[in-house]
Amino acid sequence: MIEDTETRPGWLAPEELESVRGRMPILYVDAVPVRVDATGVVTHVGLLLRISADGAVSRALVSGRVLHQERVRDALLRHLEKDLGPVALPHVPASPQPFTIAEYFPSRDVTPYHDPRQHAVSLAYIVPVAGDCRPRQDALDLVWFTPEEACSPMVQEEMAGGQGVLLKQALAHVGRLS
Amino acid sequence: MIEDTETRPGWLAPEELESVRGRMPILYVDAVPVRVDATGVVTHVGLLLRISADGAVSRALVSGRVLHQERVRDALLRHLEKDLGPVALPHVPASPQPFTIAEYFPSRDVTPYHDPRQHAVSLAYIVPVAGDCRPRQDALDLVWFTPEEACSPMVQEEMAGGQGVLLKQALAHVGRLS
Amino acid sequence: MIEDTETRPGWLAPEELESVRGRMPILYVDAVPVRVDATGVVTHVGLLLRISADGAVSRALVSGRVLHQERVRDALLRHLEKDLGPVALPHVPASPQPFTIAEYFPSRDVTPYHDPRQHAVSLAYIVPVAGDCRPRQDALDLVWFTPEEACSPMVQEEMAGGQGVLLKQALAHVGRLS
Amino acid sequence: MIEDTETRPGWLAPEELESVRGRMPILYVDAVPVRVDATGVVTHVGLLLRISADGAVSRALVSGRVLHQERVRDALLRHLEKDLGPVALPHVPASPQPFTIAEYFPSRDVTPYHDPRQHAVSLAYIVPVAGDCRPRQDALDLVWFTPEEACSPMVQEEMAGGQGVLLKQALAHVGRLS
Repeated sequence: MIEDTETRPGWLAPEELESVRGRMPILYVDAVPVRVDATGVVTHVGLLLRISADGAVSRALVSGRVLHQERVRDALLRHLEKDLGPVALPHVPASPQPFTIAEYFPSRDVTPYHDPRQHAVSLAYIVPVAGDCRPRQDALDLVWFTPEEACSPMVQEEMAGGQGVLLKQALAHVGRLS
Repeated sequence: MIEDTETRPGWLAPEELESVRGRMPILYVDAVPVRVDATGVVTHVGLLLRISADGAVSRALVSGRVLHQERVRDALLRHLEKDLGPVALPHVPASPQPFTIAEYFPSRDVTPYHDPRQHAVSLAYIVPVAGDCRPRQDALDLVWFTPEEACSPMVQEEMAGGQGVLLKQALAHVGRLS
Repeated sequence: MIEDTETRPGWLAPEELESVRGRMPILYVDAVPVRVDATGVVTHVGLLLRISADGAVSRALVSGRVLHQERVRDALLRHLEKDLGPVALPHVPASPQPFTIAEYFPSRDVTPYHDPRQHAVSLAYIVPVAGDCRPRQDALDLVWFTPEEACSPMVQEEMAGGQGVLLKQALAHVGRLS
Repeated sequence: MIEDTETRPGWLAPEELESVRGRMPILYVDAVPVRVDATGVVTHVGLLLRISADGAVSRALVSGRVLHQERVRDALLRHLEKDLGPVALPHVPASPQPFTIAEYFPSRDVTPYHDPRQHAVSLAYIVPVAGDCRPRQDALDLVWFTPEEACSPMVQEEMAGGQGVLLKQALAHVGRLS
């Protein structure tokens, strides 16, 4: 997951966040950016690309914390804008119901999701994106895959923490898992 | 419900449809057109207006049959275009999962939904509409209501066949039922 | 899909059904029988087994038509009882919202679902089953698979008409797709 | 909301919880206990009853925090057992998808939900309950209402923090809002 590092008055300072992280579940959102055709069928899913210092490629969904007194839909928009840029034109769903929740545990095998840093519970949404995507954080690109490509072993292996499973769940929800 | 009267080769002729209607459930779609703000919150719902020969006002959702070999999402688009015009720019949902189904029975009190002509099972979707709506069928207008207005007794009483209940279910699903 | 052949007064006679089949979508239900543990986690899915005259094995979900003036939940119960026997104790969901719909087309490649006989639109539900399952129709058995087994190529290849995809969608919906 | 006061090693001490409460959203679950008939139709909803020192009656859903390293479905079971007793036999849903989320804000009018103590985000589930309910916490009873009664102004006015709205959303989801 991609963590926001900004702080504002009243928010948890980084060291406080570290302290809380070991004590209670942290609320996250996961967004699966998609392109749809004129009839609403998902044609592509967008995955963020990162290349680590040793050259390893990893791909990720748009993801991040919900802040104090922030609505879930505002958190979704904030993380989408942070990762896709200001002219991505995301259509945040009208319904607050997530298509699923992903429970990231610090220990493996409790659920399909894993985050060594913390117990995070993420509300997952599919978000059609109509505009241009220009990833803003360094070392990040956004690549569009067909549903078939996104479920392929190659792409799945490049996703960490169980986000490959979450991506397949999203494709199943929109009727595009094969 | 608003019935399409077109026929094409291979479709049921009107008299055949009448014959089938009494024998098996007919598949419908119901669409709740909505306006959303930049964060996806539903601000208004659109209801079709009809005035009968005796001056009675009735309001209705966008509704109609699914045809043979027509995908549900194509049926949604066809009925939305028929009722809202060609530049309404409806965003048909990416997921084929309806937010609920409405089972219209010819006898009352089996379900909240009633259609004296037939047993119809309708897949109900919430459809954000971004463009201009210009109702095309005669004697029809489209009026936008706030969620509060849409749930008011006055509007509810102008809706027939249980569509008022279906509208409230739609508003509940998007978190706008009060 | 497994077709019911019973007739009752007022229903379509078999020859009438044949005639209608080529003209309009037929409403079906698909049920995915599951076993759950004490916390609600799906541990197994039940698949019907059929062996054809030439010895080919095929596996199927519980599936069948919705009849005239029959509620969807009554159709679900009827088909579950027909295929799993009278003491299966199925828990039909409280919500009428299907987890997805499956659009079976007579031509391939319109959707992942295919039925050479007809255009059928099926409302798909996950149904926890608590009792003993005793398949009643001849040449049918019910076999329980873990989610991993159910998604394996071997089981998937034994399912026809796209029901393997529908099964994976069901497992994705309950968080058990790996 | 009903707060659990137990502490265990590694959990937040009460004073730490107070400190965190003003800084980040706290993850909750809300459960709507229901009775269903043989076909799955919701016939009654269960509401907890509390009588305050001044004799005021209030009614509430089953509600509480999700703890560190606790799965959401385990939190649901724990709160259901705490409030309904050990033989209530709740059927926790197979799917982790909540029917909605309720965002309780310390300030009013951001959402329909309000909690003066904290910003809580609650995952809301409908839970059929098959056994005997024996509320265990003092000053609590559980009363079963028909869907019509539960939506009546009298019951709605006895619910605080927007839980009356959440209850109506639950009834809409199961097709029992009138």
